[in-house]
Amino acid sequence: MSALAHHEILYLLLGLSILLGLARLFGEIAKWLRQPSVVGEILAGILLGPTIFGALAPELQGAIFPVGEGGLAAAIDGLTTIAVVLFLLIAGMEVDLSIVWRQGKTALSVGLVGMALPFLMGLAVASLFPTFLGLEEGTRPLVFTLFLATALSISALPVVAKILLDLNIFRSDLGMVMVAAAIVNDLLGWMVFAVVLAMMGTVKVAALPIPMVIVLTLAFAFLMLVVVRLLLDKALPYLYAYASWPGGVLSFICAGAFFFAAVTEWIGVHAIFGAFLFGCALGDSRHLRERTRATLENFVSFIFVPLFFASIGLKVDFLKSFDLGLVVVVCAVATVSKVLGSALGAHWAGMSRRESWAMGFGLNARGAMEIILGLLALESGVINERLFVALVTMALLTSMTSGTLLERALQRRRPMRLVDRVTVRHFVSSMKAQTREEAIRELAESAAPSAGKPAEEIASAVLARESLMSTGIGNRVAIPHARMEGLKAPLVVIGRSDSGIDFDSPDGRGARIVFLVLTSAKSYSDQLEILADISRALQRPDAVDKALASKSYAELLALLKVESGGEHAEG
Amino acid sequence: MSALAHHEILYLLLGLSILLGLARLFGEIAKWLRQPSVVGEILAGILLGPTIFGALAPELQGAIFPVGEGGLAAAIDGLTTIAVVLFLLIAGMEVDLSIVWRQGKTALSVGLVGMALPFLMGLAVASLFPTFLGLEEGTRPLVFTLFLATALSISALPVVAKILLDLNIFRSDLGMVMVAAAIVNDLLGWMVFAVVLAMMGTVKVAALPIPMVIVLTLAFAFLMLVVVRLLLDKALPYLYAYASWPGGVLSFICAGAFFFAAVTEWIGVHAIFGAFLFGCALGDSRHLRERTRATLENFVSFIFVPLFFASIGLKVDFLKSFDLGLVVVVCAVATVSKVLGSALGAHWAGMSRRESWAMGFGLNARGAMEIILGLLALESGVINERLFVALVTMALLTSMTSGTLLERALQRRRPMRLVDRVTVRHFVSSMKAQTREEAIRELAESAAPSAGKPAEEIASAVLARESLMSTGIGNRVAIPHARMEGLKAPLVVIGRSDSGIDFDSPDGRGARIVFLVLTSAKSYSDQLEILADISRALQRPDAVDKALASKSYAELLALLKVESGGEHAEG
Repeated sequence: MSALAHHEILYLLLGLSILLGLARLFGEIAKWLRQPSVVGEILAGILLGPTIFGALAPELQGAIFPVGEGGLAAAIDGLTTIAVVLFLLIAGMEVDLSIVWRQGKTALSVGLVGMALPFLMGLAVASLFPTFLGLEEGTRPLVFTLFLATALSISALPVVAKILLDLNIFRSDLGMVMVAAAIVNDLLGWMVFAVVLAMMGTVKVAALPIPMVIVLTLAFAFLMLVVVRLLLDKALPYLYAYASWPGGVLSFICAGAFFFAAVTEWIGVHAIFGAFLFGCALGDSRHLRERTRATLENFVSFIFVPLFFASIGLKVDFLKSFDLGLVVVVCAVATVSKVLGSALGAHWAGMSRRESWAMGFGLNARGAMEIILGLLALESGVINERLFVALVTMALLTSMTSGTLLERALQRRRPMRLVDRVTVRHFVSSMKAQTREEAIRELAESAAPSAGKPAEEIASAVLARESLMSTGIGNRVAIPHARMEGLKAPLVVIGRSDSGIDFDSPDGRGARIVFLVLTSAKSYSDQLEILADISRALQRPDAVDKALASKSYAELLALLKVESGGEHAEG
Repeated sequence: MSALAHHEILYLLLGLSILLGLARLFGEIAKWLRQPSVVGEILAGILLGPTIFGALAPELQGAIFPVGEGGLAAAIDGLTTIAVVLFLLIAGMEVDLSIVWRQGKTALSVGLVGMALPFLMGLAVASLFPTFLGLEEGTRPLVFTLFLATALSISALPVVAKILLDLNIFRSDLGMVMVAAAIVNDLLGWMVFAVVLAMMGTVKVAALPIPMVIVLTLAFAFLMLVVVRLLLDKALPYLYAYASWPGGVLSFICAGAFFFAAVTEWIGVHAIFGAFLFGCALGDSRHLRERTRATLENFVSFIFVPLFFASIGLKVDFLKSFDLGLVVVVCAVATVSKVLGSALGAHWAGMSRRESWAMGFGLNARGAMEIILGLLALESGVINERLFVALVTMALLTSMTSGTLLERALQRRRPMRLVDRVTVRHFVSSMKAQTREEAIRELAESAAPSAGKPAEEIASAVLARESLMSTGIGNRVAIPHARMEGLKAPLVVIGRSDSGIDFDSPDGRGARIVFLVLTSAKSYSDQLEILADISRALQRPDAVDKALASKSYAELLALLKVESGGEHAEG
């Protein structure tokens, strides 16, 4: 605490709180709009950077978020370096090499062709139009060309995995092939990129000759994926047995990631390469416990990752460097080559036409990896700000669209979740009803305006269903429901009763919480998914106690969300 | 990533990996020796700092862990500042104000008297022997005196809480009074210290006059503990309801801690004060979920806290500045005044003699807080390195001894834990035995050397117990046991059987895992605690499956540790 002056500490803490707070706020908004969080996090950075805040109040902005020289700038840089190293660690932990072996040829075909075509198109475009793309005097054209080719050809494994989880097809055969292809893509892409990085010649600690760097990089990758992987698998049980539980293992994982990051930085490729490979080696061990993975992932994804992405917006003026022509060309080349390449690879491996297109759309997501690559190239002076902004835009647009396109291609939809269907408008904190029929009428009344149907019609549909078999599921919960023609969107009304209402439950207890569930007549699965969420959320008696004791709608919603498994209950 | 040169990034990552790895390794060793982790973590820093590593290889040490000017030093400083802010956040979260209200007068009496006596003695010593204590020319004697008085009078709530948890008396009346007294102590101590900090006059961002700083500090504390506390309690359900689960809340908590840390830094007291009070306000909310607390605590305690403590050793040459006379005086004054003061306070509040002494010994632990205070004073030039080293030594010694002294005073002992009693020497991976008697004889054979008794004697004691009632507890587990005269320490032998051995279990299944438990004839509770751990660890059928499938002793131990709740299964 002596290398930083006190005003620098003040600005550091203030800057971090604003950056983190706004990045996550925008990240949450992006999620509500069903977009990847990274979109919101980068936007927050753009808002706080030279583009907006810096244009409005340049002095204040420069004081809080300085660029270039000085202790505060160095402190922020150190922190974002650690952030990106930890981010690549958890990205690597998602890589499961055994999936690649199991999917074998199909994955290889999709991964390789899906990488080769964008790579070749990247080479072609960069060689034909170097000036348009912003090749500056003094940069070697070969490095520039290789960089662009690599940048266009890497998919983002984390984004792909996230989209598959959202669609609930992560564990399907199609999902596994897609993940395996993305892993092949990732590993190869990073290898090539490591070589390009060495050629950029900016990382000069050891100042090794380039062939030496390439040999060392390949040897390092081999060591990590074979030797270190086996050693970690042997060492983990000892760590769990003898170090503090549950936190002790975390320290050694982070220390390992920092160490191997330092090794690759020394070799002359970037630190993130070592952290990524360490993550791969670690994530493969069956001894790694879910709790360790979850703690690491939560903290890194919600503290370090947002800080890193928001900090990107601090470095570049996105408005000044936005070149529409360039953005369109980059997006078009990237998307066409990636979708076609991956689809062709899938087709050649024998997948159906529909599945091949799905593969292409799914793997088109570039996401975070693209942005990290671009940032490194920008900082080594290989590309200029215009091309960087175009690459970031391309990465964001492909990430935003690939989920929707994949949904269309597969005609799948995201599963209905209870927590997305409840609102405070449909919450009756204390029902007046004393009987089952009164309760259903009271809740139908609340549903009527949003459903666009008279309450009477709703109530009779629900009562008709109720007459077939009672919907009291025991544990003081009842879930009357009906499927109705012409309902725009599924709708859930929650009512609480102080006295308890007889819903003919198997355990004979009156219902204190009643969910009225209305879904479209066209779909059975909407109803099934929502009812499943309700019974999962309230299966434990103490969850019902808490639901009855909650003092506000928000408290109740928080409870339902946590108990039903949050937004990504896998499997 | 541009304010730091590439060699600085290399050294930053390398330095962090060594610092974190070694700090935690020593921290784990300290824990095995039943000492607080902080002792090991600080020792690791001393080893890597100027004291040892710097004396052996000054240039290399200075390159990796630079002090003072430069980008790398600033990056490390920024990181340790964030670390200490997050540490005080989680320390604050442990403060439960409702405990203070409930314990009322007793807690106030212990807390106030236990603080007043050391404070007065500190004032006296500092006024009488300023030169011996190292008051330098140019420091105002008043500031020096007040600092020393405060430093001697603060207890360390986290250490006290940890000791009580270890002894399993955290939730007892005595434990609650002790915690409440430590909270009173902590809050008051930090208030006084905030004022002293303002008088040190090093934090000069706003450059407010001192009375203004005092008024602002008190107003800030009031705002945090009353207004912000209520607002947070209202806001948390909304955060849980609408932000991502489980990570979303983490970001906003950290952003909040950084923000209020910045506020106090602006007022002119140190950043940690704001983070601490924010932690108090947050930790009090009943809406804060256990999972959020655990994730935050694990990550901060095992990544940031070790980095912070180890970094202390980097700043000072502990050998050169070690002054035995000074250390003895500081330790004696601190311990005598604190133990007497707290014991007197307890006695006046009507506690028994034994309990009063227990209170004194328990609250004598200074731990981390002392060290942070000392570091701030050192960096503002209020104290010199000799006094700093004496304060650190005092903090470590009081933390190391207070657990043992409290045990003695209460004649309590730490509960026996299964995982502390098993060793690879007493693990029979695949038993030859086919019958119950053979199994007991085979395991007794393994126990004999360590027990210092012939196998025959052990086997007959166990068989005698077995003849009273069978020890097959079902779920493929059996726990034959006996209490024996003259056994030095409890001893557990684990045997696995491939075929299963008939232990007359209630579920009729043969035992595949057999625990032979030998305890001293003097104690019933040793046996009960170990047997309880075994049945807790293996109550789920899949835990038994995993125990049977584990390929090494370490894997089995890791499983037993995790399933039986690690080293601190509370309650």
